[in-house]
Amino acid sequence: MEFEESGIGEECGVFGCVAAGEWPTQLEVAQILTLGLVALQHRGQESAGIVTSTGTNPPTFSTLKGMGLVNTAFKPEDLLKLRYGNLGIGHTRYSTTGISELHNCQPFVVDTLHGKIAVAHNGELVNASALRKKVMRHGVGLSTCSDSELITQLLALTPPMEELDNPDWVARIKNLMTETPTSYSLLVMYKDVIYAVRDPYGNRPLCIGRLVPISKLHSSGAGEADTEGWVVSSESCSFQSIGAKYYREVKPGEIVQISKNGVESLSVVPRPEGDLPAFCIFEYVYFARPDSMFEGQMVYTVRQRCGRQLAIEAPTDADVVSTVPESATPAALGYAQQSGLPYVEVLCKNRYVGRTFIQPNTRLRQLGVAKKFGALTDNLAGKRVVLIDDSIVRGNTISPIIKLLKEAGATEVHIRVASPPIRFPCYMGINIPTKEELIANKPEFKDIAGYIGATSVRYLSVEGLLSAVQGGIESHGKDERISSTTKTTRIGHCTACLTGKYPVELEW
Amino acid sequence: MEFEESGIGEECGVFGCVAAGEWPTQLEVAQILTLGLVALQHRGQESAGIVTSTGTNPPTFSTLKGMGLVNTAFKPEDLLKLRYGNLGIGHTRYSTTGISELHNCQPFVVDTLHGKIAVAHNGELVNASALRKKVMRHGVGLSTCSDSELITQLLALTPPMEELDNPDWVARIKNLMTETPTSYSLLVMYKDVIYAVRDPYGNRPLCIGRLVPISKLHSSGAGEADTEGWVVSSESCSFQSIGAKYYREVKPGEIVQISKNGVESLSVVPRPEGDLPAFCIFEYVYFARPDSMFEGQMVYTVRQRCGRQLAIEAPTDADVVSTVPESATPAALGYAQQSGLPYVEVLCKNRYVGRTFIQPNTRLRQLGVAKKFGALTDNLAGKRVVLIDDSIVRGNTISPIIKLLKEAGATEVHIRVASPPIRFPCYMGINIPTKEELIANKPEFKDIAGYIGATSVRYLSVEGLLSAVQGGIESHGKDERISSTTKTTRIGHCTACLTGKYPVELEW
Amino acid sequence: MEFEESGIGEECGVFGCVAAGEWPTQLEVAQILTLGLVALQHRGQESAGIVTSTGTNPPTFSTLKGMGLVNTAFKPEDLLKLRYGNLGIGHTRYSTTGISELHNCQPFVVDTLHGKIAVAHNGELVNASALRKKVMRHGVGLSTCSDSELITQLLALTPPMEELDNPDWVARIKNLMTETPTSYSLLVMYKDVIYAVRDPYGNRPLCIGRLVPISKLHSSGAGEADTEGWVVSSESCSFQSIGAKYYREVKPGEIVQISKNGVESLSVVPRPEGDLPAFCIFEYVYFARPDSMFEGQMVYTVRQRCGRQLAIEAPTDADVVSTVPESATPAALGYAQQSGLPYVEVLCKNRYVGRTFIQPNTRLRQLGVAKKFGALTDNLAGKRVVLIDDSIVRGNTISPIIKLLKEAGATEVHIRVASPPIRFPCYMGINIPTKEELIANKPEFKDIAGYIGATSVRYLSVEGLLSAVQGGIESHGKDERISSTTKTTRIGHCTACLTGKYPVELEW
Amino acid sequence: MEFEESGIGEECGVFGCVAAGEWPTQLEVAQILTLGLVALQHRGQESAGIVTSTGTNPPTFSTLKGMGLVNTAFKPEDLLKLRYGNLGIGHTRYSTTGISELHNCQPFVVDTLHGKIAVAHNGELVNASALRKKVMRHGVGLSTCSDSELITQLLALTPPMEELDNPDWVARIKNLMTETPTSYSLLVMYKDVIYAVRDPYGNRPLCIGRLVPISKLHSSGAGEADTEGWVVSSESCSFQSIGAKYYREVKPGEIVQISKNGVESLSVVPRPEGDLPAFCIFEYVYFARPDSMFEGQMVYTVRQRCGRQLAIEAPTDADVVSTVPESATPAALGYAQQSGLPYVEVLCKNRYVGRTFIQPNTRLRQLGVAKKFGALTDNLAGKRVVLIDDSIVRGNTISPIIKLLKEAGATEVHIRVASPPIRFPCYMGINIPTKEELIANKPEFKDIAGYIGATSVRYLSVEGLLSAVQGGIESHGKDERISSTTKTTRIGHCTACLTGKYPVELEW
Repeated sequence: MEFEESGIGEECGVFGCVAAGEWPTQLEVAQILTLGLVALQHRGQESAGIVTSTGTNPPTFSTLKGMGLVNTAFKPEDLLKLRYGNLGIGHTRYSTTGISELHNCQPFVVDTLHGKIAVAHNGELVNASALRKKVMRHGVGLSTCSDSELITQLLALTPPMEELDNPDWVARIKNLMTETPTSYSLLVMYKDVIYAVRDPYGNRPLCIGRLVPISKLHSSGAGEADTEGWVVSSESCSFQSIGAKYYREVKPGEIVQISKNGVESLSVVPRPEGDLPAFCIFEYVYFARPDSMFEGQMVYTVRQRCGRQLAIEAPTDADVVSTVPESATPAALGYAQQSGLPYVEVLCKNRYVGRTFIQPNTRLRQLGVAKKFGALTDNLAGKRVVLIDDSIVRGNTISPIIKLLKEAGATEVHIRVASPPIRFPCYMGINIPTKEELIANKPEFKDIAGYIGATSVRYLSVEGLLSAVQGGIESHGKDERISSTTKTTRIGHCTACLTGKYPVELEW
Repeated sequence: MEFEESGIGEECGVFGCVAAGEWPTQLEVAQILTLGLVALQHRGQESAGIVTSTGTNPPTFSTLKGMGLVNTAFKPEDLLKLRYGNLGIGHTRYSTTGISELHNCQPFVVDTLHGKIAVAHNGELVNASALRKKVMRHGVGLSTCSDSELITQLLALTPPMEELDNPDWVARIKNLMTETPTSYSLLVMYKDVIYAVRDPYGNRPLCIGRLVPISKLHSSGAGEADTEGWVVSSESCSFQSIGAKYYREVKPGEIVQISKNGVESLSVVPRPEGDLPAFCIFEYVYFARPDSMFEGQMVYTVRQRCGRQLAIEAPTDADVVSTVPESATPAALGYAQQSGLPYVEVLCKNRYVGRTFIQPNTRLRQLGVAKKFGALTDNLAGKRVVLIDDSIVRGNTISPIIKLLKEAGATEVHIRVASPPIRFPCYMGINIPTKEELIANKPEFKDIAGYIGATSVRYLSVEGLLSAVQGGIESHGKDERISSTTKTTRIGHCTACLTGKYPVELEW
Repeated sequence: MEFEESGIGEECGVFGCVAAGEWPTQLEVAQILTLGLVALQHRGQESAGIVTSTGTNPPTFSTLKGMGLVNTAFKPEDLLKLRYGNLGIGHTRYSTTGISELHNCQPFVVDTLHGKIAVAHNGELVNASALRKKVMRHGVGLSTCSDSELITQLLALTPPMEELDNPDWVARIKNLMTETPTSYSLLVMYKDVIYAVRDPYGNRPLCIGRLVPISKLHSSGAGEADTEGWVVSSESCSFQSIGAKYYREVKPGEIVQISKNGVESLSVVPRPEGDLPAFCIFEYVYFARPDSMFEGQMVYTVRQRCGRQLAIEAPTDADVVSTVPESATPAALGYAQQSGLPYVEVLCKNRYVGRTFIQPNTRLRQLGVAKKFGALTDNLAGKRVVLIDDSIVRGNTISPIIKLLKEAGATEVHIRVASPPIRFPCYMGINIPTKEELIANKPEFKDIAGYIGATSVRYLSVEGLLSAVQGGIESHGKDERISSTTKTTRIGHCTACLTGKYPVELEW
Repeated sequence: MEFEESGIGEECGVFGCVAAGEWPTQLEVAQILTLGLVALQHRGQESAGIVTSTGTNPPTFSTLKGMGLVNTAFKPEDLLKLRYGNLGIGHTRYSTTGISELHNCQPFVVDTLHGKIAVAHNGELVNASALRKKVMRHGVGLSTCSDSELITQLLALTPPMEELDNPDWVARIKNLMTETPTSYSLLVMYKDVIYAVRDPYGNRPLCIGRLVPISKLHSSGAGEADTEGWVVSSESCSFQSIGAKYYREVKPGEIVQISKNGVESLSVVPRPEGDLPAFCIFEYVYFARPDSMFEGQMVYTVRQRCGRQLAIEAPTDADVVSTVPESATPAALGYAQQSGLPYVEVLCKNRYVGRTFIQPNTRLRQLGVAKKFGALTDNLAGKRVVLIDDSIVRGNTISPIIKLLKEAGATEVHIRVASPPIRFPCYMGINIPTKEELIANKPEFKDIAGYIGATSVRYLSVEGLLSAVQGGIESHGKDERISSTTKTTRIGHCTACLTGKYPVELEW
């Protein structure tokens, strides 16, 4: 694949659904799961999987997995296999290993003494290596290198052994949470229940929605009695596409039980005294879909605020402001609003080219990423351009774009990056290049503008980013959409990749 | 497919390439063709095909065809079949018939008394039915319903029969052009030559580019001696992705010969006295990629002018201007600039959902097109919104979007359409619903705002559209990119779908 | 493909079916065609195609084509496209060109002035090259290199042009037959009729069956009134698998019209005075399925007679007789019966290995065809073996088998070939190696036993083969299954590949 | 699938290979594994898998799995992944569950405290259910329902825990063997060693071969020094296709270590005092390829002896003896030899039809299995036929064949079955219908001849079968191919499906 310049990547989305009614449900759970995963597709395109349960006693679990995008991975005839599901969980996966195999596709299902459990997981256990050894020392062989299998085996072997008919999964989940502090947003399905779990640091997102009749979707009067089921998702952007209303976030450390009877908070496992929450700030900066909502605020709006802040921190004497489509657009509009400079488009993206498989010959390789973009010359000729990007990872993507703009007539190209330089690796579920590959750690960074061919380069400060993110949470203090817990909780975010300050000590 | 609401569709893109050197070329012709077709993918996603020629005497023709997107249709190992091509033509197809078969995939190759010819075609012969009868009356059976086969057989049978070794294809092409006035942009490959042909009305686009060393691509000093080959394409947006410089348009009625020796204009077949050219105005409005250039002006800029004109014709008392992403964005920015209203984004598009194959159950079907978009509520709450769309065909797409915006808090939604209402069918290569299906012909059109749920609806006038398109051509009078012919030619465009005035009389 | 040692190959099978009733038929015509083609699969495995007609006025033709075996080429959901067929023709193709493309897949359908015709063809026009020139000189381009397209265009252009509503296809077919003497068994479908045609020399087989209720299939009392439809096929072996009774052969030169009203002989185009019929003798020797019937006799029985004749001509002092499975088994049993030697099996065939795609390394390549067979050592140890093969083409297949038998303990291996040496190419539809590749034309042939490592090698004589084939026809003189025509016709067979005596003069 | 009448099915084949040399080997291990699996394809067609190890310290394991036949499951480009393998094991799977998923495909690989192990398994653990509970009680979740995963987890958790660097896999395997008496032929790969294991009853087959240079393959002089590697396989028929010489069987209860240094017998776990070995007698009757060798005798010869014994037990006054091709042919030839009746062929099998996917309409369904066979009428007309079949399971396959023969002219059809009636289920790896479905347990069995439409029906007796199988072993007493152990071991076979006498008590 030629166009894998993108430097950082999310690791997966999770989605679950429980129908409110009795079995067999009238709700098309498998379809809802599929559409929910499609809405989370930006979080992982390598493989997708769904497991449904009849919710009966004993339940029947049905599994469907496939490589590639959701629409490639699942064939309509296969979805029929899942049609009697009353509840189910799904997963869309981003490969961090480079080895892409169906084998590693989630959710992971195992049969235990108490029956089957299915697990879907977003995040990365910081002490996975030690936990793997522990499990194997117990005599368990691990058939994949995924955290999901590790989690299922940890859940399965946790002592003490309860009564066969009445396993205490919540105690087991709590036990798991004491053994590994972060990072996981987890869905565990057992019989007719989904446990939705977020690690005590709340590093990965997870939120709950309520299915209501489509006709009452947007009306304010859809009351409790109208509830047709519940969904749980990595991002709220998925709710709209399946006809669900945003309900609330799962809190850091919380275990929520979702069943046909409703949503119940079973426990909140606390962080060590003094530790702040550590929701990944890059969800705001880059990963999440702009129409998703975290901590009571819309991602789009945060990005726009980052752009405004950037304009304050790094004003530019220029003619126009523009964006590297599409992810940097909210920040670019924010920059334009704050600076008073006109916003124009200067690049046209060919949405088909990304999937080109050709291994081009020398001649074509020189074209680089420019193949992906067409320059809108009329907006460029003779102009001094401020180009907003959301992040610069390796520096090899922005360089040909700058060249492209200049050749199309721009007299100056000022790069303004709506996030601080990435300097440190992530051990909590994000795929970042090694320290050595990051442009911010290279000698060339001293003259980054010269290196990438820009007239000037400026980054948003860490403080600026935090104020853009956290200022919004505070100002939304009275917003009903923020749970009271969030409001009273002290605010904190994981900025490890920017600052090297990891939320937990890394011992390995 | 659930989301086929789009009302109008292009019919195909054509692309050709000739390497400048001797056989075997050092230029990767098959790769250039593939990337060229990828850049034209928006013009047709049903199937793709390439034919290359060794350009030797006799030549070897190699063919590759497949269903779906270019990247699906061609496998890397298949492309190796074409590797010795010194020249070639390609085609990407949009199905208008609903019957999608490899059988109808272009280019069409036939063996004639003089050797093989390959034909790729964009457009639709207005008198195809009569021509088919003529060919069949001559005793020829036609194996497809495509115009391309019809054209090859017309070229093959045209009398008089020349010397075996020296067929006069140009005479035959001219003869074809006298038999059918429009609509065709045509590539005909024979041995080591590509004939690039545009019908006398110039209804479909066709332009030529020059391949230069990538290192000299953007320098102004790439002279004749640097030419590595020639390309010809439906749209100039494809040039950038393969490292070619824009050279010029093929003129209406022109036959251009492209060979390793260069580009030569062989003939210009005139229109009937008094007839104006009739380049399809919807290429500007909707079909073309915004970074393509027609008649010396960039499509993006024309769309922006349409937005400005719309703001003049249909001003609105509102708070913000926004777009139905992505095609209406230039017009929306134009409207914002002219009106002084701030431009904001209100819809987030899920680029994966369009390909969902699920046949949703009743509950999910009610969600309609809203599944495709997420509302950016922070930009909508309490706002009076001007929403720019590029066209309204059936009226069933915009309606759920308006509902979505209102439910997200918009107090008013004023629809402003950057083109006039479509009222008439197209017989020149565009797939438009039947007259009855067009919303502008329905009784509901009288109260279109009420019908689609908008606060108000206004369209751009035909005059406004023409002034936005033609004003630019005139103002570019001194632009070197416009051929002198274009400049002296009286200006004209096909607006048949808007006005019912077809460029030629339709007799069937 | 590693195991393509087989030297000769058939070129295609054709199959047609007409339901007796009105439209829409209760008969599952598409299914019958599919099963009929499966039964002819041994005649071609490269691609398969079916065209059905509703038989209405005007008719709707539906086409289905695919690469590979019938069961791979047609998907169940695709077959539904053909479900309203009241009649149809099908084709299974053997590639002689090495270039295998869907493009060349039959039946070939063209639209003519009089409507669509579909053509399926088994055989090879001896003067194809001249006919192609003729057609092209008329101004027709040919899009494939298949005889089928050539035949359709010849049928389409044949003057004189009749009334539009009443084309005289029979006159056109007769005209075609005067232009090309051989070789073709042809199905031409037009509206509600199939014309079944055999060339005047009867070089390729074609026979007719009658569909009766399954319950009456084997009873002798299934009368005319029970007829549910008609089928026409390259080989009668297909009749049993679709529930049809053998009706009769199409005679050399005959044009038979098959419609819902029954079977009607329209014409018999004669051979030149003095010429004998020339049915391909290799259909008996090798190609046909043993349960097929030609000229009133079962192929199996003819092969058995060849074995008996071979025992008379080439007796052997040995212990056991055996076969190269599976095609030589009838001859081996015949040889055993005649010679009185016991018949045993000595080779076990791995039916999966033939499709192995591995390109083995040097070490494995040395194993050669032995990979395909396991030696049954208990039947070989200390034995003098007569091994019957049906033909030896290149000599590279039998050699490793002999080595295998000897290593497994055989003390002597006498090869007896149940047909004469192949010395000449075929121009009538059979894929035979070039003259130079044929072992019988090589210097090594003088000591063929030494060359292939056998104790002795003997071939059946041409006279012996002819007597085995023709003796049966004569002795079946009173058999009701032989049409009176066949009985009175002087007997003759094409032995060109053995004798170099071609049925028609080859001028090119 | 229409033609799934076959009543019984094998469960899998296993194959392993170790190259003699250092890493990287010159031997194409992955190719040898693939060809070995192709030769075992008759034992399982659902899925196939290969795992190779570099044999280095630490080793790299590479896995390749796929659905369907070996040639479908593995693509050439995928095989390249395995190219550095110095050793490897493979598996071809027969689905007994009806649920066919890649998930269950073997070999099963797990990571343990000591590194990765891979397991391939043929057979069925009689106490699998109890063992699963045991494993799960230990806190292990099981992700599949396959015995292979169960075995790997049992091997992983067996206490006591040895030194990390020096796990005692042999002790663990022995421990496993004490926990489950049967049925398993097992390959366990760890680092650079394959452990080949047969359960103490020797219920499933397993034998060892020696790779020698192809040039020395058949010469008696290929000494130790010529050894290029070792293979281990369910059946010896695979040796010939990869160029290996038969070495010896793995003995019941034996653990053999195969490494680049050679073959070493590590241990023989004994059966309980007084128990006989229990090799599955149906391997002789039906499953194995006829050119495989068990207990020193060729399967083909045993089947032939069964036919002879049947002729003694059930003589028939008839004209000819024939077979239901192809599996019953050895027995038919044996019957013919013993009885003096002539052997003829009466059925021609269409080898393509078995894979037809069509769900035929009522009319075609009535044809039943007859679609698969063509009757050779010339050998049937007026004849009293003895038709040998290898087994009758449900009775629905033979019935339409008898009808077919009668309609083709047979005056009498006497069915002689070369094995006793199947009356009991198998719990040791063979897929047999439930007791109720077996024709021998139905009331109709009293008049089985009437039920299936035969003139008479006779089965081989259990004693006759045992004498045919065991008589050969005794008479081969001096054969060098039988290991001395086998010779001194008392002879015994599992006839549970015929007699209900299972080799071990079944307690569940």
